Amino acid sequence: MSVTAAQGFAASGLHCGIRRKKPDLCIVRSLEPAVGGGMFTRNRVKAAPVLLNQSHLAQTEPQAIVANSGVANAATGERGKLNALATAAEAARLLELDAEQVLVLSTGVIGVQLPMGILLPALPTAVDALSPDGGADAAVAIMTTDTRPKEKAVECDGFTVGGMAKGSGMIHPDLATMLAVITTDYPLEPGEPASLLRPAVNETFNSITIDGDCSTNDTVLLLANGTSAVERTAESDKQFADAIMEVCDALSREIVADGEGATVLATITVSGAVDDAQARAIAQRIAISPLVKTALFGHDPNWGRVLVAAGSAPYEGRYADLDPECVSLSYNGTVVLRAGSPEDVRPDVSGPSCTIDLDLGLGDGRASYLTSDLTYDYVRINAEYTT
Amino acid sequence: MSVTAAQGFAASGLHCGIRRKKPDLCIVRSLEPAVGGGMFTRNRVKAAPVLLNQSHLAQTEPQAIVANSGVANAATGERGKLNALATAAEAARLLELDAEQVLVLSTGVIGVQLPMGILLPALPTAVDALSPDGGADAAVAIMTTDTRPKEKAVECDGFTVGGMAKGSGMIHPDLATMLAVITTDYPLEPGEPASLLRPAVNETFNSITIDGDCSTNDTVLLLANGTSAVERTAESDKQFADAIMEVCDALSREIVADGEGATVLATITVSGAVDDAQARAIAQRIAISPLVKTALFGHDPNWGRVLVAAGSAPYEGRYADLDPECVSLSYNGTVVLRAGSPEDVRPDVSGPSCTIDLDLGLGDGRASYLTSDLTYDYVRINAEYTT
Repeated sequence: MSVTAAQGFAASGLHCGIRRKKPDLCIVRSLEPAVGGGMFTRNRVKAAPVLLNQSHLAQTEPQAIVANSGVANAATGERGKLNALATAAEAARLLELDAEQVLVLSTGVIGVQLPMGILLPALPTAVDALSPDGGADAAVAIMTTDTRPKEKAVECDGFTVGGMAKGSGMIHPDLATMLAVITTDYPLEPGEPASLLRPAVNETFNSITIDGDCSTNDTVLLLANGTSAVERTAESDKQFADAIMEVCDALSREIVADGEGATVLATITVSGAVDDAQARAIAQRIAISPLVKTALFGHDPNWGRVLVAAGSAPYEGRYADLDPECVSLSYNGTVVLRAGSPEDVRPDVSGPSCTIDLDLGLGDGRASYLTSDLTYDYVRINAEYTT
Repeated sequence: MSVTAAQGFAASGLHCGIRRKKPDLCIVRSLEPAVGGGMFTRNRVKAAPVLLNQSHLAQTEPQAIVANSGVANAATGERGKLNALATAAEAARLLELDAEQVLVLSTGVIGVQLPMGILLPALPTAVDALSPDGGADAAVAIMTTDTRPKEKAVECDGFTVGGMAKGSGMIHPDLATMLAVITTDYPLEPGEPASLLRPAVNETFNSITIDGDCSTNDTVLLLANGTSAVERTAESDKQFADAIMEVCDALSREIVADGEGATVLATITVSGAVDDAQARAIAQRIAISPLVKTALFGHDPNWGRVLVAAGSAPYEGRYADLDPECVSLSYNGTVVLRAGSPEDVRPDVSGPSCTIDLDLGLGDGRASYLTSDLTYDYVRINAEYTT
């Protein structure tokens, strides 16, 4: 269901030949006038579609999205920008929209030009295939090294929020090679989609990491077409915000769980920090540590590595302050370090998920991060992923 | 030869039983009154020996060093501090020194107490074994996951600089699980060892990374006993500084080349940056990127990953500024990206070493970083390394 779960949306997904076999092109459109907004990677190297979308969103409200997998259209110079624009313009012509009403998403290899001779001729077929049942096809078409599509829909009182996402490598704030499209029939005003996305994205897509690399293409888009005609109240707004959070949370968890080669899902929580920002910096540092992540793979409660990472977390231009004698640490609820002294225990970390709780004993700051383990398969996938 | 290459130094190394089989205890001492200094990890969680050494160096000049492998004596609370002090005190008694004249180095597992019942009784044997030929034994005794000892000596006009180091995982500025001891018979004044180490360490040990993790124990020590009786001149001082740099450079290169599971050694150079500090931040970000490191393992010139890393390098609290349209990139001298546009080439990266040159096209800032690839063996070693 995903992006077509809400009323008044249609989608399609097909194989046009950018990738050898799997579906690689999709369209999502609103059947009624919609408002939309997005959040984008903060990487200094932004892919052509990211720049195009930021420009289009500044001009008008988006009505449709064209997405391809296989080629990221990043580091492609002037030609890459023209290709992104040509994709939007041709889709707009077929959909009877203005070019600025179409957004473009690309994911895949960097530094390779989009094969326009393959992509453009496939757009009419993709437009013809648009259907209110096309969400599942679209979710498959945006996958790259993902092993499964990522979809989520939440039904609320009189309206629906649905979404799809892709991403399993190069996943890290801010947003990585992570694409997500969320649609709703809840009525929103222009400008609201972007501002309503931010808190949800910060708590979810921006609190996950697989390999610490943050990509050139990361994008989360929200389209709202108001088709549900539900009456907005403070209560329904709250329900909508919760639904957005729930969809973002589910999709971001699926991304980490499907992290390249992942076998263990770990939730790192830092509490007792000076403030939430410090907690977040330390949680992130632990979540990206290759030594912590390989220990997770080995089901080894090698908790010293968590301390090593925590003690060297960059924060405000230096390592985050902490007092080793105040620090306590638990694995799956078993205390291994209490106020700086080790306990003579060996926690059970044999399962496929693990919680690591670090209490700095300094204040009330708190943050959580979701990460996966670093495995042979992660190395295999990323050593073999061809340029 | 290493730490006993210079005149007036003796060393020993033996197996006392902290580790199951390999040598795990060593002593290095100056046979003449020496001056010394060190550089230590900036991790907020500092091992007991690091704290002890900082305290001892503030009180007097060091004459001897006791080092053990197998247990890091980090995250060991009050008892760990007492154990470090007891080690120094017992060695001092046997060597007829004050406890403050003895420094202590430990490397190995974090969160485990030193087995003092094994360590202390072995110290008399280690003292008896001290010999001007003992450098090689000492270099073996400090190894952990290292596959080979790391030694280097430089003969100058009338004096010698020699050193040993260990480290092959958890290697990252500032200094990681990296121990290095450098000795010289060049005459130095009190305070000079620490200040002369700094520039050399920053260029060498602080410009390497294996896994981005920075340990609780990292230490570089320099002992100088003036036994050579060479006359100091501006020229000899220059020669000495060069020799220190050469020893640090050789040892740090050996550390990366012996990085856990490493098969490829890569030199990342960032030029054209706003300043050297910006170049360094970006070079470091590239050097720790798991995606760059797995591509090195796969001998895959997947250069988009270098851009991804460069574009998300933390610098001064945000991502380092760069203009994607000014960036050029080469692999082994072959230009793959010129002023933001990709070239249609596939560079040869089949060899065991690789140079990656990123020119930001902004200014004169420049920095280099040395890194290794991320391999199956890295994962194996770190997933299996027992707690």
